[in-house]
Amino acid sequence: MPELSVVSCQIEELKKHRSLSMDQSVKPEKIKHDHQLSFDLIEAQYRLRNSRGSDHGKSVLVIMSGIELAGKGEAVKQLREWVDPRYLHVYAEPPNFFNNKQPFWQPYAQVIPAEGQVVVLFSNWYNDLLNTAMHVSKPLDDTMFDAYIQQMRKFEQDLKNNQVDVIKFWFDLSWKSLQKRLDNMNPSEEKWHKLHGLDWRNKKQYDNIQRLRERYSEDWVVLDCEDQHQRNREFAQHLLLAFKDLPRHSGLVANQWPQAPIPQNLSAITHPEISKKDYRAQLKKLSRKVADCLRYNQRKVVIVFEGMDAAGKGGAIRRIVKNLDPREYDIHCIAAPEHYERHHPYLWRFWTKLENASPISIFDRSWYGRVLVERIENLAADFEWQRAYEEINRFEKDLVDTQTIVIKFWLAISKDEQEQRFKIREETPHKRFKITSDDWRNRAKWDDYMESASDMFYLTNTAYAPWHVISTDSKRQARLDIMQAILNQLKAE
Amino acid sequence: MPELSVVSCQIEELKKHRSLSMDQSVKPEKIKHDHQLSFDLIEAQYRLRNSRGSDHGKSVLVIMSGIELAGKGEAVKQLREWVDPRYLHVYAEPPNFFNNKQPFWQPYAQVIPAEGQVVVLFSNWYNDLLNTAMHVSKPLDDTMFDAYIQQMRKFEQDLKNNQVDVIKFWFDLSWKSLQKRLDNMNPSEEKWHKLHGLDWRNKKQYDNIQRLRERYSEDWVVLDCEDQHQRNREFAQHLLLAFKDLPRHSGLVANQWPQAPIPQNLSAITHPEISKKDYRAQLKKLSRKVADCLRYNQRKVVIVFEGMDAAGKGGAIRRIVKNLDPREYDIHCIAAPEHYERHHPYLWRFWTKLENASPISIFDRSWYGRVLVERIENLAADFEWQRAYEEINRFEKDLVDTQTIVIKFWLAISKDEQEQRFKIREETPHKRFKITSDDWRNRAKWDDYMESASDMFYLTNTAYAPWHVISTDSKRQARLDIMQAILNQLKAE
Repeated sequence: MPELSVVSCQIEELKKHRSLSMDQSVKPEKIKHDHQLSFDLIEAQYRLRNSRGSDHGKSVLVIMSGIELAGKGEAVKQLREWVDPRYLHVYAEPPNFFNNKQPFWQPYAQVIPAEGQVVVLFSNWYNDLLNTAMHVSKPLDDTMFDAYIQQMRKFEQDLKNNQVDVIKFWFDLSWKSLQKRLDNMNPSEEKWHKLHGLDWRNKKQYDNIQRLRERYSEDWVVLDCEDQHQRNREFAQHLLLAFKDLPRHSGLVANQWPQAPIPQNLSAITHPEISKKDYRAQLKKLSRKVADCLRYNQRKVVIVFEGMDAAGKGGAIRRIVKNLDPREYDIHCIAAPEHYERHHPYLWRFWTKLENASPISIFDRSWYGRVLVERIENLAADFEWQRAYEEINRFEKDLVDTQTIVIKFWLAISKDEQEQRFKIREETPHKRFKITSDDWRNRAKWDDYMESASDMFYLTNTAYAPWHVISTDSKRQARLDIMQAILNQLKAE
Repeated sequence: MPELSVVSCQIEELKKHRSLSMDQSVKPEKIKHDHQLSFDLIEAQYRLRNSRGSDHGKSVLVIMSGIELAGKGEAVKQLREWVDPRYLHVYAEPPNFFNNKQPFWQPYAQVIPAEGQVVVLFSNWYNDLLNTAMHVSKPLDDTMFDAYIQQMRKFEQDLKNNQVDVIKFWFDLSWKSLQKRLDNMNPSEEKWHKLHGLDWRNKKQYDNIQRLRERYSEDWVVLDCEDQHQRNREFAQHLLLAFKDLPRHSGLVANQWPQAPIPQNLSAITHPEISKKDYRAQLKKLSRKVADCLRYNQRKVVIVFEGMDAAGKGGAIRRIVKNLDPREYDIHCIAAPEHYERHHPYLWRFWTKLENASPISIFDRSWYGRVLVERIENLAADFEWQRAYEEINRFEKDLVDTQTIVIKFWLAISKDEQEQRFKIREETPHKRFKITSDDWRNRAKWDDYMESASDMFYLTNTAYAPWHVISTDSKRQARLDIMQAILNQLKAE
């Protein structure tokens, strides 16, 4: 955990800074220091910005929380005067109450900074959690509260591993000072004050907020906000250290990798025959059932298709959606990430695709590309794809925990059958578009794909999001099997 | 207007198609035709997809409207069975009532297809307008209705000019057939039926809708939906023609370009002196006034900064935001478009930036890049930048018409003063990041920039969004002038 030790180093260094600067209370000195701080911040900010795309590129996500009137807004305002404000983005929206319908990170996925960027989140998952705890009629008990905090920490660790540095600030203010500031409140600040809808005159509520935040603030920077200038400087100095800290990504070393055994059903494909007539009758019945089940399900459904080229992903998807209304589903075809997507955490493009999604989302290839094509083609470093299994499991768990059913298919095909289908594609005018040199290249790496797929099943076949391996040498039987597997999983949930 | 003639050709061709296919009502023939249509669609769809980034790349935006139960959903469902459904995106959200707070295209900017894509809009600006006309307490009069239609047509023409083909379908159904279908309505369709919240048993309402749509449907494809199979085939055949029609972009020829005269204040810079003390006092007063004016304004504000490098855009922005809360404004730094943005209409990245924007949006460089750097560096073809002035004027008009104040600054600097500032930047450690080889290269093209800026003022200095040219050789005076100009424009509105 290099990031955590970095943070504690920062805090140590800052404590030194603080005790030094405490001695100097003469005004001209202070101004000189502010100028120096501003220079340092701007320089660090530009270095950070120019790090984009390099081996030490990162972004900084600043989580803002704390007691009302402690001066979060003031501190960011002062910071924006010290830095180049054009490269400091601020995100502030009304809080999202935890409703168990979407992962806590979903409303913020879009604003997570790309490499080189700095984003300040006035609204964030911690504030949402605190607000929910203060507002819901049935209070969150401490166990549940702590469980959320654990999830958040894990998500943040994933962000940090993917070059999004996360730095969290609690702006603290004593009860006495808060009351004094409320007495003297500037009317123009009132509108922000009211945003959170809490009664800051209520001592019991104040104590409860402090009690709750102490459950999680050990890895936070807690700023004492009695002295406004001191608060602004400390806040800025913490960020300065975060901007400056640009460790090389390649410093991380991969583990020895124990290859999982290759399951029988990936290599030796069984394909029972089925007559066209039986197939038609069964497909008709099954596909209606599937459509009804998908449609009248109370949860969202995410269906993932992976498999070798020509295994029939497209055909299967056509049969699934046949009885659905086009407004009920989205189909996402996942190819290589766009250039701008590469400056975000690997899973980011999937997080954002799921925001405001249709009730049924079908992925033709998916986030598993990280541990398949990216692993095989060396597009991800070893330590990156090795880490990805856990990241993916957490991502899917977050979806399942928030009313989403995740159904995953691997369409298995034999090497001979693939060759047959490639040839047919090449010979059929309206199928010729379906085959490219990439397909032949992937075929040449068949064994690598079998190994990677085996690791994938071994490490991501979870109880909450199991894999279905479907033999597809018989296209007809495969389609029926897929329908049946969807029905079974939907009914089991 | 090459696009319009293309559309009418399509319609002619389709009429031929239709009269041919009318004769053949035997069932096996029909199935064979459906297969052929499906092959043709898939082939055309792949060609379209592969056109991305080429000289004949385009996207297709399909506008869906019509009488309830005429079968819009069914037609798209059938289409999705005939094409590769993975490359056909559908967008359906509840209607947005026209509220004069945002341009009609704003809710749809994000889903406008990128080159190679096809997007079907069940929700769209026409449906929003029809719904507004049917629902608002004070009915839209015909003049207002027609004015909206004119705006929409112009926007669509801009889309077409920027390689987004727009094809509009009215699914028509007689009053008698509608009533019959309502009698036999399938309960599962009910939920879509209710979406529009209209009473389709009301003959007066039906007649009114038909009357309104006849005001604009002359460039629409009006599909008679009595026969469902015929409807689906016709719909698909129209799209097939749209997919196939991939004209070369470079076919368009630019006009002879009459260069606008270069205004005095761009080349001969006057810079009155002002003492530091006077400056400080005035700035303090003005910047507070500006903050108040910006904040308590009922409208949104967009401030645009253009000008030669080192003219002081960043410094001016810092002074403007000094007295604002960081949650009240966004600063957008506009550099070259990202790779994925280039597959969209030129203005698209600005449309999307203004969605859910803060009350105050400041642009450090802007959409004017099209007629400045892109013109000068040949990043846009002549016919593209020549067309851009009108596109930009329409864009700004749409903003101004929907409660946004657009304030535009050109920061003028003399060539000598720029050289001075470049040198200071190179010599000052914390400013060194601000200067790159690009800056020197742009300087070498000084005269080109003066010419392009002059054309820009001449063609985009509109009454609703005027340019303010500020001499910046005296930084202090310039900042005061900028503040004063903002105040003046805000007060004038």
